[in-house]
Amino acid sequence: MIPPAPAEFGLIARHFRPLAGPGALDLLDDAATLSPPPDRELVVTVDAIVEGVHFLPDDPPDLIARKLLRVNLSDLAAKGAVPLAYLLTLSARRGTSEAWLEAFAAGLRHDQECFNISLLGGDTTSTPGPLSLTVTAIGHVAPGAMVRRAGARIGDGIWVSGTVGDGALGLRAIRGELDDRDGFLAGRYRLPQPRLGLVDPAFVRAAMDVSDGLVQDLGHLCRAAGLGATVWATRVPVSVPDPHWLETCLTGGDDYELLMIVDPLREAALQARAGELGFAVTRIGTVDEEAGIRVLDAAGQRMALASGGWSHF
Amino acid sequence: MIPPAPAEFGLIARHFRPLAGPGALDLLDDAATLSPPPDRELVVTVDAIVEGVHFLPDDPPDLIARKLLRVNLSDLAAKGAVPLAYLLTLSARRGTSEAWLEAFAAGLRHDQECFNISLLGGDTTSTPGPLSLTVTAIGHVAPGAMVRRAGARIGDGIWVSGTVGDGALGLRAIRGELDDRDGFLAGRYRLPQPRLGLVDPAFVRAAMDVSDGLVQDLGHLCRAAGLGATVWATRVPVSVPDPHWLETCLTGGDDYELLMIVDPLREAALQARAGELGFAVTRIGTVDEEAGIRVLDAAGQRMALASGGWSHF
Repeated sequence: MIPPAPAEFGLIARHFRPLAGPGALDLLDDAATLSPPPDRELVVTVDAIVEGVHFLPDDPPDLIARKLLRVNLSDLAAKGAVPLAYLLTLSARRGTSEAWLEAFAAGLRHDQECFNISLLGGDTTSTPGPLSLTVTAIGHVAPGAMVRRAGARIGDGIWVSGTVGDGALGLRAIRGELDDRDGFLAGRYRLPQPRLGLVDPAFVRAAMDVSDGLVQDLGHLCRAAGLGATVWATRVPVSVPDPHWLETCLTGGDDYELLMIVDPLREAALQARAGELGFAVTRIGTVDEEAGIRVLDAAGQRMALASGGWSHF
Repeated sequence: MIPPAPAEFGLIARHFRPLAGPGALDLLDDAATLSPPPDRELVVTVDAIVEGVHFLPDDPPDLIARKLLRVNLSDLAAKGAVPLAYLLTLSARRGTSEAWLEAFAAGLRHDQECFNISLLGGDTTSTPGPLSLTVTAIGHVAPGAMVRRAGARIGDGIWVSGTVGDGALGLRAIRGELDDRDGFLAGRYRLPQPRLGLVDPAFVRAAMDVSDGLVQDLGHLCRAAGLGATVWATRVPVSVPDPHWLETCLTGGDDYELLMIVDPLREAALQARAGELGFAVTRIGTVDEEAGIRVLDAAGQRMALASGGWSHF
């Protein structure tokens, strides 16, 4: 007998096969082939997102798909890598509707076109629990040119892209804790903007994306170099300039803006690159010798922040 | 202030950093670098496993870790690839004990040594639902030499490694539906054996691992070539030679033995390779022109099988 191709294979064929790119063998095989472009090396990163933790159960499926891709593209952006392809895992409840999958795949397709990437492979499985998704993103850099977390030097400028804290504010706005009449903040939570093309080892010495909160993530960059930092809270670009929300902006996660340590002699190059790309960049502080992160208020006094940032465990 | 490194980072440092290999930057960065070995191309595959679907809540954590790696290594084995490295995502409930993580990491370490692979990167996150794990496995082949699902020709032999159906029988044994005094079947369910090194394009024209059931997976291989197959049920190597369980063995999933389509003139080469590796291989049928999979019983009559195999949706 012909084993009937079960529902799972039909779903993959209808919704995911059209997303497959070079090496993906139309998703008809159990693995894909991959080679870096000539004279480049690969950069790989993986992120998992879970319903109820990283997105809300009734978030639109196309936006879930796009956020999933973007949190990974943001890691590639921080490393100065050019995106190439991705692998996807989708663990969903039995009975997930075809309409949901169609919208989810449409979101992937949209961002594949925006960011010039394609699907290389994946796995679908059922789960009795929350929808769980992972993307393994693959990019490329010139050999040895990946920008690292380590690399900061004393006197380097600390820069951020865009506005910081919008992810945390957006989540609170969705919960009704904050006015967001035009939906701007909710949009920033649901659809981060990967700042691809901004980080270049010619002027960025170290970088990462802000996923666990600005202060905590800056702590990672400074610890990696055995140094510390001073940040002027009043210079941190925020969308809601209300002192009540300042600490949320400084410590909230889920921003995916870039935090960059920049050679002070090459700041003009960073600003020129940002201008070409249409991204805002702002200097918010300086790397210094003393370990730890000092956040100064408008009066130059050290702020006491209650939360160091987000931990999953 | 120094943001205290939250519990999550300590757990990663203690349990996962020792597993990191070349390019993983000690898991201190947000991405890893990767290049194929000289004159090789990469092969990538990803699989997700979920508590309650692919493993049982009280399975020993070291065996969960090893099964997770092995289901992915089995895909690389089917493609004729040499394993290189892997990325891991772990979504666990808050409060997952340090002892559980320690045992899980010990399982990874054990199989890293068995199969000469290392951890390249990963992501840990909390989930309110079942433990969910993914591995992205990366291997390498000579350029263009990856063995595909397509490639079968009329008259080719259909071969399997090991014994087929043990995974499905093992799950039933754990549930008490089947006698398994020595725990052999349960062990086969919990710890599949990736048959690395067996598949070689010099004699294997097409291959995949048996994850969704022998008949269904053979259907995939034959459909990919526009052909069909005849299988002699009595030749299928099983661990429990009881007619009551035959259909379970033919259609049950989770085996991860290899299903290979072999050039009839090169069967001796397959058998010699299997002998070197200490793996059993058995010819169970022939590729033929008529679409569909015909399973014949001892009397040469076509068997009617109730289930085509496993579907997640």
